Amino acid sequence: MSNKNNSSLTFEGPSCPVPYQHQKKIIMGHGSGGRLTHELVKNIFLPHFTSQALAAGNDFASVNLPADAMLAGSLTISTDAHIVHPIFFPGGDIGRLAIAGTVNDISMSGGKPLYITVSFIIEEGMTIEMLERIANSMKITAEEAGVKIIAGDTKVAERGKADKIFISTTGIGWIPPNRVINGQSAQPGDAVLISGTIGDHGIAVLAERGKLGFQTKIKSDVAPLNNLVEIIIFKAPSVHVLRDPTRGGLATTLNEIATQSKVTITINEKDIPIKKEVQAACEMLGFDPLYVANEGKLIAILPLEQAEIALHAMHSHPYGRDAKIIGYVEKADERERVLLKTIIGGTRIVDTLAGEMLPRIC
Amino acid sequence: MSNKNNSSLTFEGPSCPVPYQHQKKIIMGHGSGGRLTHELVKNIFLPHFTSQALAAGNDFASVNLPADAMLAGSLTISTDAHIVHPIFFPGGDIGRLAIAGTVNDISMSGGKPLYITVSFIIEEGMTIEMLERIANSMKITAEEAGVKIIAGDTKVAERGKADKIFISTTGIGWIPPNRVINGQSAQPGDAVLISGTIGDHGIAVLAERGKLGFQTKIKSDVAPLNNLVEIIIFKAPSVHVLRDPTRGGLATTLNEIATQSKVTITINEKDIPIKKEVQAACEMLGFDPLYVANEGKLIAILPLEQAEIALHAMHSHPYGRDAKIIGYVEKADERERVLLKTIIGGTRIVDTLAGEMLPRIC
Repeated sequence: MSNKNNSSLTFEGPSCPVPYQHQKKIIMGHGSGGRLTHELVKNIFLPHFTSQALAAGNDFASVNLPADAMLAGSLTISTDAHIVHPIFFPGGDIGRLAIAGTVNDISMSGGKPLYITVSFIIEEGMTIEMLERIANSMKITAEEAGVKIIAGDTKVAERGKADKIFISTTGIGWIPPNRVINGQSAQPGDAVLISGTIGDHGIAVLAERGKLGFQTKIKSDVAPLNNLVEIIIFKAPSVHVLRDPTRGGLATTLNEIATQSKVTITINEKDIPIKKEVQAACEMLGFDPLYVANEGKLIAILPLEQAEIALHAMHSHPYGRDAKIIGYVEKADERERVLLKTIIGGTRIVDTLAGEMLPRIC
Repeated sequence: MSNKNNSSLTFEGPSCPVPYQHQKKIIMGHGSGGRLTHELVKNIFLPHFTSQALAAGNDFASVNLPADAMLAGSLTISTDAHIVHPIFFPGGDIGRLAIAGTVNDISMSGGKPLYITVSFIIEEGMTIEMLERIANSMKITAEEAGVKIIAGDTKVAERGKADKIFISTTGIGWIPPNRVINGQSAQPGDAVLISGTIGDHGIAVLAERGKLGFQTKIKSDVAPLNNLVEIIIFKAPSVHVLRDPTRGGLATTLNEIATQSKVTITINEKDIPIKKEVQAACEMLGFDPLYVANEGKLIAILPLEQAEIALHAMHSHPYGRDAKIIGYVEKADERERVLLKTIIGGTRIVDTLAGEMLPRIC
C-alpha cells in the first residue's frame, strides 16, 4: 500500500500549502503520495484502522497466520469493488458494505476472515467529514466481524471522473481442514435455507435514491455474516453450500449454484420470507423481489436431516432470526435450472437475469 | 469475488438481450452479476487469467501456500488502486501497471509474490477491445512475474461517473524467514543504490497526454521487479531497505525512509542516472526529476561493504543495468532529512512534496 504514515511530519516545510486540519474537502494532493496523503492516513485512517502494519508506513503489511492455520487447511481470498450509489443509505453506507461484503465472501467458503485490505478511489471535492464517517463505519464493521484492516491505498480522481468514493476490499481467511463448502457441492436431497427476508438492501438503496415516491422504513440488511456461519457449521457440519445472494438476488445466486452443482433447485414461493414493505415496493416498481440484492443474507444448502438443526441455529442469531427452509435440491433432468412453486400452485422457471435491473446497488 | 463463470450458460433464455459477441462496448449490465457479467468473465478474463479458482465460479479463491511457506516466514500483503490517465501510454498500460505495481510492493518487503486479486471499475461505454488488451497485458505481466491472478470482481459505473477503467490489485506473498527488509531498517554507514534512470514513467505518461508539445521516445519503465529483488538478496543478503519510488519519485520515497529509520540520507546529484530526454522534458516543464514517478525502479539500502556486489548483481539483470550507487546514510542530527549534494558543489535539503505535481500518474 502507498499510505505511508509519517508520524513526525510537521507543516513547516517550504512547499506546504494549507495544512490538513484546515482542509474540509479532498483535493488532488490527497492522492499524491506526498505530505497531504500522509496527513490523511494519519488523521483519518489510522485512528480507525488500528493496525501496526498500517502504522509502520511501509507499502506492505507483514502478518503471521494463526498457529492453527500453519498446521492445516487452506487460505481463502476474495476481492470486491464497491460503487454503491448513494454512499449513505438507511441501515448502512459504502464503508459497512465494503467490509461486510468481503467478510461474507470469505465466510461463504467456510473460511474464517482474518485480514482485509482497502483501496480508496476518491473524487476531488468529497468532504473530509464524509470520508471520516465512512472510515468509522468500516472500523465498527471490522470490529464486529473480528477482522483486521491491515493495508490500504488512496487515490484521488478529478471532479467528474469518479463518483464521490469507490472502495475495493480484499479479504484473506483461513479454511479449517475438512471444510468443503462451495457452489459445486449441492446434492440431490439437500434442503435449501435462507437466513432471512429478501430484497431489503436493494429497496433501501432505491428508496434513498428517491425512486419509491413515498416514505418507507425499509433498511438495508448489510451485515457481516461470519459469526452466523460459524454457528451454522458448528451445528450442521455437513453444510454443502453457503452463498450470499447479493447482486442479482436469490434467483441469480440459486441459478449459479444449480449450474455449478449440475442440479435442479426448487423453491416454494410461500416459504420465502419477505417484508410487507419490500413486497409492496417491488409490486409498485414492477420488480421481482427474487432478483433484488441482499447484503446480510445467506443461502445454506445441506443434507435434509440437518435442515431443522441448521434452522434452529440460525434462529438463535440476530442475523438469522427470520430464517426459513425454502426448497430442496433435485437431480437435473435435461439441464440444471431453478424452479419456483408459486403460491397459486403453478411452477415456473426462474432464470438468471441477463442485464441490469438495479445498477450500482453494491 | 463476484465474477462467476458459468460455463454451460447459453443465450437461449427468454430475458437475454444482445449476446456478448455482438456487444462492442461495456454496458451497465456487464456489472450486474447476471448473465452479461458471466459472459464477460468467460470471454475476456478467463482466457487471460488461467486460474482454476477463477474458473470454479465461486466468490472466493481457495489456495494452499507453498510447502516452504507453511514451515516458516510470514505473509506479506499489499493493495493499490490504479487510476492512471491515459490508460495506454508508451511502454505500458494500466493493466501492466496494476500487476507490476502490486508485485513490486510485495517484493520490496523481501517477499516472493504468489497470488494477485483484481477488481475492475469500468465506465459504461468503454470498448470491449480495450478491456481485452488490458487483460492481455495483465496476463503477460503476471506470467513474467510468476504470480497467479486468482480472483476478480467487475463493477460498471454510468458514463461520466468513472474514467474508462480503474483497477485495484491486492497481492499476497511469502517472506522467507530471516528476511527483515523494511523502511525502518536503514542504518548509518549504509549505501543507497538506485536500479536505473529516474522519471521515465512520469514523463512518458505526460507525453502521452500531449503535455510536452513535442515528440519523444521516452517510454515508461513499468515492470515487475521481483526477479531483480531475488538476485539482489541472493548476492547481498544483508540488504536493509528496498522501496520502489513511485508517486512522489525518488525524493519523496527517500524522505519516507529517512523518517521511518530516523536517519539522514545524502545523495549526489552527479550520480543519479537520468535519461537526457527526461532531463530535457523536466527542464522545459519546470519539474524536478527527483519528484517524478517511476514504476520499474527500486532503491536498495544496504551495508557499504555489500554495495559493489549488489551493484554488479543489478547490472546483470535487464531492469538493473543502469544501476548506480547514489548516496549514503548518516546519523540524523536534529531531525531526519534528505540532502542533495548538487553538481555545482552545494548542499540542499530535499523535502517531501506537499501536494500534487502530476495527478493520476499511477
